[in-house]
Amino acid sequence: MLQPPPAEPGMREEDVDTPALVLDLDAFEHNLDLMAALLAPTGTKLRAHAKTHKSPVIALQQMRRGAVGQCVQKVAEAEALAWGGVLDILVSNEVISPRKLARLAALAPIAKAAVCADDERGIALIEQAAEAAGIRMTVLVEIDVGAGRCGVEPGPPAVALAERIAGSRHLIFGGLQAYHGSAQHRRTPEARRQAISFAAEGTRRTVEQLRQRGLEPAIVGGAGTGTFALEAASGIWNEIQAGSYAFMDADYGRNEDPPPFRQALFVLAEVMSSPRPGVAVVDAGHKAVAVDSGLPLVHGFPGVTYTGASDEHGTLAGEGLPKLGQKLRLVPGHCDPTVDRYDWYVGVRKGRVECLWPVAARGGMA
Amino acid sequence: MLQPPPAEPGMREEDVDTPALVLDLDAFEHNLDLMAALLAPTGTKLRAHAKTHKSPVIALQQMRRGAVGQCVQKVAEAEALAWGGVLDILVSNEVISPRKLARLAALAPIAKAAVCADDERGIALIEQAAEAAGIRMTVLVEIDVGAGRCGVEPGPPAVALAERIAGSRHLIFGGLQAYHGSAQHRRTPEARRQAISFAAEGTRRTVEQLRQRGLEPAIVGGAGTGTFALEAASGIWNEIQAGSYAFMDADYGRNEDPPPFRQALFVLAEVMSSPRPGVAVVDAGHKAVAVDSGLPLVHGFPGVTYTGASDEHGTLAGEGLPKLGQKLRLVPGHCDPTVDRYDWYVGVRKGRVECLWPVAARGGMA
Repeated sequence: MLQPPPAEPGMREEDVDTPALVLDLDAFEHNLDLMAALLAPTGTKLRAHAKTHKSPVIALQQMRRGAVGQCVQKVAEAEALAWGGVLDILVSNEVISPRKLARLAALAPIAKAAVCADDERGIALIEQAAEAAGIRMTVLVEIDVGAGRCGVEPGPPAVALAERIAGSRHLIFGGLQAYHGSAQHRRTPEARRQAISFAAEGTRRTVEQLRQRGLEPAIVGGAGTGTFALEAASGIWNEIQAGSYAFMDADYGRNEDPPPFRQALFVLAEVMSSPRPGVAVVDAGHKAVAVDSGLPLVHGFPGVTYTGASDEHGTLAGEGLPKLGQKLRLVPGHCDPTVDRYDWYVGVRKGRVECLWPVAARGGMA
Repeated sequence: MLQPPPAEPGMREEDVDTPALVLDLDAFEHNLDLMAALLAPTGTKLRAHAKTHKSPVIALQQMRRGAVGQCVQKVAEAEALAWGGVLDILVSNEVISPRKLARLAALAPIAKAAVCADDERGIALIEQAAEAAGIRMTVLVEIDVGAGRCGVEPGPPAVALAERIAGSRHLIFGGLQAYHGSAQHRRTPEARRQAISFAAEGTRRTVEQLRQRGLEPAIVGGAGTGTFALEAASGIWNEIQAGSYAFMDADYGRNEDPPPFRQALFVLAEVMSSPRPGVAVVDAGHKAVAVDSGLPLVHGFPGVTYTGASDEHGTLAGEGLPKLGQKLRLVPGHCDPTVDRYDWYVGVRKGRVECLWPVAARGGMA
């Protein structure tokens, strides 16, 4: 069930119902501006990843600053964006379910919606969906550039899939999806450079072989918040798919050289139990703040650590604990899945609630 | 945004859109019947914990089998249950926010809704909310029986709070909340017996001291799926707050002597990428199946392991991998937070979808 918003515009932040997903609007807008400024001289374009924010409101703010479109991982996310006015969407992921492909094809009258493939059988399913809908669908070939997950091998196997797509009356070959996910969080600049150097080699080789066959990849997409400067400088990728840069999280903060963005996303929590000296329990456990990439940090309380998350409780320890009833900002360990727990962003500026935005694709997993 | 249901009644399970929250109705009903049968001879009552299921539909099935009411952790959960016809609700947790207490008080015309306290300041806030609403609110004292989280010390500190409640014109002393959460998952029977023996000592002592003051605790509540047989046999607790027993999960399965219930809850997933031999990637990552208590198990594929979860992908490895497009059931590592990711239960019996039930309090954290 959709939850009611935890705040109203004009309210002070400390009056917002907890737990709540708070967006510091000054930091958020700074991040959007900074990414646009960093990419402008490189010639690469931003196709920001909406798996992070799940919001057409945020997507359109990115696009007003120059982003050419949005990436999503799921058809449900593509729907939420298209219904909210985003006109150029790439599902940067494989979709093979006929029901989902039919839904994606049904967006054609209102938005461009491309999809990835890494298998001939998947391409055949997309072709059937496109034919049934009477449209031509744009398909990118995903190559495995080192993550070892989805994606066909670079080089000839990728070229073979591209030729299969280009040879179909119902499909358009859209380019290459070349994303190295796990490289984003490698802790040292050198480790990330090595990973993206490896990714670049396979991508460059595939691009060259495609061109030899007359198959120009309109999109060569990839990169995330941890490595985008490398891809943008490579001369190979032409679209950057960063998402977390808009919000940031504690895990990116643990990189030796954290990305140059401000922490904009917080979970506002309240101390709801403090029965003994040295004990403070907040009302945000791992249902409220994702712990897959580590526990949250406690913002503004330098001596205090969030030491344990259960379903609905978080335990704090340290010096200068907040008091019963006090509200505080947690820095999520991982922004994307934390956002996906909430129905509403509470946009805050200078201590006041300025706006409420729905997390339109919250729970959109299909 | 509320997501559309991933299935329709009558559909075959393999046609359900993935990822989906699948409830095996035979196993689920078996679990409800078994808990009722196990508790009947003990004289203790079940007040099942709705933090697990977040569904008045499920709550009413538990109550038709003898449960006296429901527990919740959050006011939003209490609202969802009351609006769905559950008449007796205990918030087994502290609530101190005046806005939340006003919402809880507003349920009085349609349901009994009691709440816990572990602090005089919290009791004063509940008192103000009750007075403002013109009702008497029932308040239980939570004691810390070994978990070291919320709850006042057993004995005199708890008695002092009970007297404070009983002395208020706006409050009713409702009893003791005495739950040892972390004991549920201790792996050996002996470790759980020790934990509950410790909890029993503090609870018994507090009950005795309350009776000496003429304060009979109507409810002495606690216990979960891992330890309920111990509390039920103790002669101290009179209400059992188990929740997971209805569904079960992989983490309970790792106890040396797993609870005697069947696995009823699954995440249905699909192999959406299999680009190379030995690689199978499903469309359910940690946004779709909670990993706070470990990765999911792969049901029905004894040689296959779910080896890694990213946001939207799960990687499988092993012998006899499922094929591209094949659907399979995952056993969640932890049932409660997995349920909270979904808007719909898909009830399945003998391979067919029988019903769709909303996860009415999904995301209800406030």
